[in-house]
Amino acid sequence: MIIVMEQNATQQQMDRVTKYIEDHGMKSYIHKGDLLNVIAVIGNEITINPENIAALDGVSTVKKIQEPYKLVSRTTHPEDTVITFPNGVKIGGLEKPVLMVGPCSVEKDFDGLIKIAKAAKEMGCQFLRGGAFKPRTSPYDFQGLEEKGLEYLAAAREETGLLVVSEVMDTMDISLLCKYVDVLQVGARNMQNFKLLKALGRINKPVMIKRGGAATIKEFMLAAEYVLYNGNPNVILCERGIKGFDSQFSRNVLDIAAVPIIRKISHLPIIVDPSHATGKRYLIEPMGKAALIAGAHGLMYEIHYDPDNALCDGAQSLNLDQFRQVTKSLNKLIGRIDYDNKNNVK
Amino acid sequence: MIIVMEQNATQQQMDRVTKYIEDHGMKSYIHKGDLLNVIAVIGNEITINPENIAALDGVSTVKKIQEPYKLVSRTTHPEDTVITFPNGVKIGGLEKPVLMVGPCSVEKDFDGLIKIAKAAKEMGCQFLRGGAFKPRTSPYDFQGLEEKGLEYLAAAREETGLLVVSEVMDTMDISLLCKYVDVLQVGARNMQNFKLLKALGRINKPVMIKRGGAATIKEFMLAAEYVLYNGNPNVILCERGIKGFDSQFSRNVLDIAAVPIIRKISHLPIIVDPSHATGKRYLIEPMGKAALIAGAHGLMYEIHYDPDNALCDGAQSLNLDQFRQVTKSLNKLIGRIDYDNKNNVK
Amino acid sequence: MIIVMEQNATQQQMDRVTKYIEDHGMKSYIHKGDLLNVIAVIGNEITINPENIAALDGVSTVKKIQEPYKLVSRTTHPEDTVITFPNGVKIGGLEKPVLMVGPCSVEKDFDGLIKIAKAAKEMGCQFLRGGAFKPRTSPYDFQGLEEKGLEYLAAAREETGLLVVSEVMDTMDISLLCKYVDVLQVGARNMQNFKLLKALGRINKPVMIKRGGAATIKEFMLAAEYVLYNGNPNVILCERGIKGFDSQFSRNVLDIAAVPIIRKISHLPIIVDPSHATGKRYLIEPMGKAALIAGAHGLMYEIHYDPDNALCDGAQSLNLDQFRQVTKSLNKLIGRIDYDNKNNVK
Amino acid sequence: MIIVMEQNATQQQMDRVTKYIEDHGMKSYIHKGDLLNVIAVIGNEITINPENIAALDGVSTVKKIQEPYKLVSRTTHPEDTVITFPNGVKIGGLEKPVLMVGPCSVEKDFDGLIKIAKAAKEMGCQFLRGGAFKPRTSPYDFQGLEEKGLEYLAAAREETGLLVVSEVMDTMDISLLCKYVDVLQVGARNMQNFKLLKALGRINKPVMIKRGGAATIKEFMLAAEYVLYNGNPNVILCERGIKGFDSQFSRNVLDIAAVPIIRKISHLPIIVDPSHATGKRYLIEPMGKAALIAGAHGLMYEIHYDPDNALCDGAQSLNLDQFRQVTKSLNKLIGRIDYDNKNNVK
Repeated sequence: MIIVMEQNATQQQMDRVTKYIEDHGMKSYIHKGDLLNVIAVIGNEITINPENIAALDGVSTVKKIQEPYKLVSRTTHPEDTVITFPNGVKIGGLEKPVLMVGPCSVEKDFDGLIKIAKAAKEMGCQFLRGGAFKPRTSPYDFQGLEEKGLEYLAAAREETGLLVVSEVMDTMDISLLCKYVDVLQVGARNMQNFKLLKALGRINKPVMIKRGGAATIKEFMLAAEYVLYNGNPNVILCERGIKGFDSQFSRNVLDIAAVPIIRKISHLPIIVDPSHATGKRYLIEPMGKAALIAGAHGLMYEIHYDPDNALCDGAQSLNLDQFRQVTKSLNKLIGRIDYDNKNNVK
Repeated sequence: MIIVMEQNATQQQMDRVTKYIEDHGMKSYIHKGDLLNVIAVIGNEITINPENIAALDGVSTVKKIQEPYKLVSRTTHPEDTVITFPNGVKIGGLEKPVLMVGPCSVEKDFDGLIKIAKAAKEMGCQFLRGGAFKPRTSPYDFQGLEEKGLEYLAAAREETGLLVVSEVMDTMDISLLCKYVDVLQVGARNMQNFKLLKALGRINKPVMIKRGGAATIKEFMLAAEYVLYNGNPNVILCERGIKGFDSQFSRNVLDIAAVPIIRKISHLPIIVDPSHATGKRYLIEPMGKAALIAGAHGLMYEIHYDPDNALCDGAQSLNLDQFRQVTKSLNKLIGRIDYDNKNNVK
Repeated sequence: MIIVMEQNATQQQMDRVTKYIEDHGMKSYIHKGDLLNVIAVIGNEITINPENIAALDGVSTVKKIQEPYKLVSRTTHPEDTVITFPNGVKIGGLEKPVLMVGPCSVEKDFDGLIKIAKAAKEMGCQFLRGGAFKPRTSPYDFQGLEEKGLEYLAAAREETGLLVVSEVMDTMDISLLCKYVDVLQVGARNMQNFKLLKALGRINKPVMIKRGGAATIKEFMLAAEYVLYNGNPNVILCERGIKGFDSQFSRNVLDIAAVPIIRKISHLPIIVDPSHATGKRYLIEPMGKAALIAGAHGLMYEIHYDPDNALCDGAQSLNLDQFRQVTKSLNKLIGRIDYDNKNNVK
Repeated sequence: MIIVMEQNATQQQMDRVTKYIEDHGMKSYIHKGDLLNVIAVIGNEITINPENIAALDGVSTVKKIQEPYKLVSRTTHPEDTVITFPNGVKIGGLEKPVLMVGPCSVEKDFDGLIKIAKAAKEMGCQFLRGGAFKPRTSPYDFQGLEEKGLEYLAAAREETGLLVVSEVMDTMDISLLCKYVDVLQVGARNMQNFKLLKALGRINKPVMIKRGGAATIKEFMLAAEYVLYNGNPNVILCERGIKGFDSQFSRNVLDIAAVPIIRKISHLPIIVDPSHATGKRYLIEPMGKAALIAGAHGLMYEIHYDPDNALCDGAQSLNLDQFRQVTKSLNKLIGRIDYDNKNNVK
C-alpha cells in the first residue's frame, strides 16, 4: 500500500498514520520528498481497509498495490484451471469451448425436455441447463418446479449422457441440488449472496457464478474468491450482460471484453450467456461467435421446443430448428479457431 | 395490455396472437384501423409475460397497462402505511421522520456500542442499527460477530429503549434475528434474493429492504411485493445510492428523486441512507437534509465512537461529536418542516 | 505523481521510466523498498499523461497527486467566486440563491413570453431563460427562432428588468448571443465542445456550463477549466441530471451530491436544473428544495403559460399557477436557510 | 401513435386529447373498450412530442409506433448503403471490412507519420487516421497541429494512396477539412453537436459519426438522421465504447451488440474502434476480431511508431511490430468470413 500525505501534513499526522499501520501488524517506510511525503506499507495488506486510512487527517490518497483477491488471481496461480467432469468433458484453459443449452426453466412437459436434450446431444453440446428454482423479479411469475424439475434433469442426463447445470438460490437447497446436478449455478442476482458462496465453497461439485448486472470485474473476482477460500477450487465464471442506459434493443450490455480481461487476470474458466445478455433471439448467433473468438471457454444459451409457450424467457429462446442452424454455425467457428494459438483462425 | 401489430401483419398472425391470449385465460378485442391493428387484452395481465407476445410473428410492440406490482401500489391501497412499534414509534405517512443510527458492524467492544446507543438516545434518535451478519465484498474482511452481536444489540436496547435494526443475510438466520431485533434489514446485495424475501413475508416483524445498487424502481417495488404477497404488510424501503459511472467523489449516486417518486406510487414508508450512498462523512449532513426535505420518512446513517479504528466503513462514519452536531442540524430541519403540508417549511 | 513499479521490475525498466520523466522536464526520486520500488515525480505534472507512463514496461500503477484542473480548484483559489451582474444581482458564495425560469424555447407568441416574464418578476426571480437556438435530438423537432428569439428575450428584459440566459450552440453564434443576453449557456450535449469552450473563454460575459449527461465531476471541472484558462473567470456550473439505467419515472438521475462536492472542491457557483433532470412537473418542487438545502446557488426550471401546447418540453414545464405555488414554497425555504451558517435552517 | 387513457378518464379528457391531435394535423380513432379506452393516431407522428400528450389529464401512456428516424432506417431504405471512394475502396453492405489505422494525433515528426502510413499500406489497410484538431478533456493537453496536421495527412496519402480520415470539431473548420481529407469524423463528444451535424449534411464528402459515450442507439441514429436530412447520404457509424460503471480494466464498455442491432435497423455502414473503447493495447486484437465476426464493416485502431512518446493515447496504441502481428491475425479472420452468408466462417 502506498499512502501519499497532503503537502502540508504535519509530523504528528504522519506519526498517527504509521502507528495505525503498526497497530494492524504491518510495517511502514516513510519516504520524505521535497514536495510530498509518501508512506510505503509492507505486509499482508489484504485485510486492511484503505478507506479507513484515507479518512485519517493529513492523508491525501491511498493506493493498494496488491490485488484484493488472491486465490482466483493468475499472479498466485499462473496455470489455467481446467475442470474435468466424470465423463471426460473438460472446461477451461486451451480446451475447446463447451456449449450449455436448454430451457430457461424446466417445465411440466417432461417429453419436451427430452426433445430438447436429444437435440442438444445430437448437435454436440455437452451440458443441459434448466432452472428448477427460478429467481423471478415478480412474485406473480412462474417460480419453478423445484425438486420435480431436478428429477427431470437427472432423467434427461440418464437418457442422453449430457451433464446437467441448474441454479441454487438458497443455502438450504444446496444438498438437494448436489444430489441431482453436475454444476450448481449462482444467478446474477445472488452473486453477492455471501452466505451462499461460502456454503458452496464447502461442496465438491463445480460452481458456476454469473456476473451480477452491476458487478465490477473486481467484485466478480471476489465472489469467486469466496468459493475458493472456503475450499472449492472448481469455479466457472459466466458473463451475462451488465446494466446499461439503453435497453431498447438489448436487455443488457454484453461485456465481451470481460472475456480477454478475465483470461489475463485469472486462471478460472469464463463462459458467456448471450441469451440473458441480450434478451433477443437473433443476437444469440453473432454475440455467441463474438464471445468465442474473444476467447470464451464456452457459451450458454436458451432453447425451447415451443418458445411461444415457454413459461419463462421465450422471447430469447431459439426453437429447435433455429437451435440446430445457430449451433451448426457456432461449431463451424469452433472448428476453425486454433486454441493453442491465441484464438486465431486456422 | 395493448398489442400493436406490424403494419403488414396477416390475419393468420392476428389469429395466432388472439389464440395465445385466450389460451392464457384472457379476452382480446381487435381494433382494426386504417394504418394499424391493435389488440386490447382484458384480464389479469399480471401473470403474462409481454416478451413472449412480443416474440410472436407480426407483433410490433406490446405495452402492459397494469403495473406489475399490486400490493405495494398506491393504486390499490391509497392510504399510507404507517408502521407502529410496540414502544409507540411510528414510521410512514405524515409522521415525523425517524433517525436510525449506529455502527456499520457490531464489534467486540460492548462498552463502545453502549456509548453510541446512549448518544443516539440523547439526540432523540429512535433506532440503533448495527450489523451482526456482514455482507462483505471480500472474504478477507470482517464478517460480523453473528449471534454475539445480536445479544449486544438487544442489551443496548435494554439499556436505552432504542429499537434495534440489523441485517439478515440468509433464510436460515431469520428465526435467530427475530429473537433479537425489531426490524430485519435486507441488504442491497440481497434485494433480489427471492427465497429470503418470501421467507420474510411469513414473519411478523417489520422488514426494511435496501434498494439494490442497480435496481430500477420497478424492481425495488417488486422486491417489496414479494414480502407483502407472502403475508407481511410491514415493509420499509430504503434508498442507499445506485451505481454510477463516477465514484471519485461519492461511492454511489444518491437518487433522492426516488423519495417523491415512491411516495407517489406506493404507500410504503421510504427512508434514505446517506452514509452508504456517498461513503463520505462530510456528505451525510447535506444529503440527509436534502432527503428529508424531499419527503423521506427517515434517515439511516453511521456513527462510531472511534471511526479510525472501526472494522468496517470507518471513512463514512461520524464520530460522536460530529454525530451530535449533524443530528442537531437535522433535528432543527425536522422541526421546521410542516409534515401535514407537502413538506413545506413553516 | 507516484509511480509504483512491479515487484519484479528490472533496473533497466526503472531507468527507462526515469529517463522518460526527465525527458518531459520533471525530476524523479526513486524509493527502493524491500517489497517494491516507488518513483516520486516532482514538477508540473499537469501536462503529462499518466497513461503513457503506465504503458511502460515494469510499471504497475501510476497515481497523479495534483488535480488535473487548477484554475477552477479551491486549492489554488480558496475564496468563492461571486459573479455580480450590472443590475446588482449576485450569484455564488454565501449569496442567497437565484431563480432562473422561463420556457424551454422562445416561441412565436411574444405576448406569451411577456406573460411568463412578468410572472417571474412578480415572484422574485432574477433570470429569464429561453432557448433561441435549440439542440434537439431529432432533426424533425422545432429548432428555435434563432435571432428573432433573442430579440424577444431582450425585449422581455427591457419590460421587466430580468436578466436573460440563453444557449449558444456554435462558435459562429457567440457574438450574436453576446449582443442580446446576460449569460451564455453551454448545453449538456456541448459540455465537451472544446472549440466552443475556448471561444467562450475570450468573451466578457458570464458563461453557464451544464454538466454532460455522462460527464464525471472531473470532466465537468475540466470543461470549466477551458473557459477560465482562456481568460473568462465568470463561470456558473449547472447540474441537470446524469444518465442512469432507469428512466421510467425520471428522465435522468439528479445528482444532488454534486452540489456539496463541487462547493468543496471548487470556488465556482453551482446551480441545479430539476426540470431537465427529471422531466416531470411534480418533481420540480421536491428536487428544487433538496438542491437548495444541499447548498445550490440557484435553480433553473421551466415554466410556460400553456405547457400543453409548448413546442418543447411541455411535460416538464409548470403552468403559471403551478409556477407561483412552487416558487412561493421555494422562496419560503430560501428565507429559512441561514446562508452564513452551513445552510442550516434558522 | 397509441394513446392509452386512464381507466377513470372522463369524456371531456378524451375530447381534449383528440382536439390536441387534430390541432396538430393528425387524425384520431377512439377505441372504447370495457376496461380502457385507446386512441389511435394516424398521420406523420414524427413531428409530435409524445411527452406533451402524456402530460394531458387522463392520459395513461403514449406509445409511438413509427421510429423517430426515417432516412437512416432500413424500413424506408431496405438496401444497404455502400460508400464507394474515388480509388474504388468500398465500405458497407456485404463488402469486405476495411481497416482504418494511424496515430491518435498527427505530430510534428512527419517522417514518423510516413513510417506509419507505409506500414499500414503494406498490411493492406485502406485508411490512415490521425487527428489534426484534437478534442482533449483538459486544456493542458496537446490540442493538435491543426492545418499543418492536415497537410501532413494529405502528403501521406500522396505517398501511399491511403484514404485519409480526420476529425472536425467546429463548423468553422469544415471547409478546411474538406480540402484535405476523404472522410470527416465527428467525435463522440460532438455526436450531439447539431449545428455541426447540420453543416456536415451540406458537404459532399462522407462523414463518420462516433457514438457518444452515453448515447442510446436511438440517439445515435438521430445524429446520423441530421446529416442525411440535410442532404448528405454518405454516413459511416462508429461504435467506440459506452460509459460503464467499471473502468479499472477497460476505459469504456465496447458494445459489440450494437453492430448486429444497427445492421438490422439501419442500412448505414457500422465500424468499431477497439482502441478508444478499451484504452488497452492487448484488447485491440480480441475485441477487433469479435467486432468483425459480429458483422462490423470495418475497424479503426491506433498505431504509432513510438507509442511511449506519443502525445496522445500512447497506452492504447500498437507499435509497428505489434500492429503487423495483430493486423495479420485480423486479415486472416477477414479472409475466413463468408460475407455473403451471414458472416459465417468458411
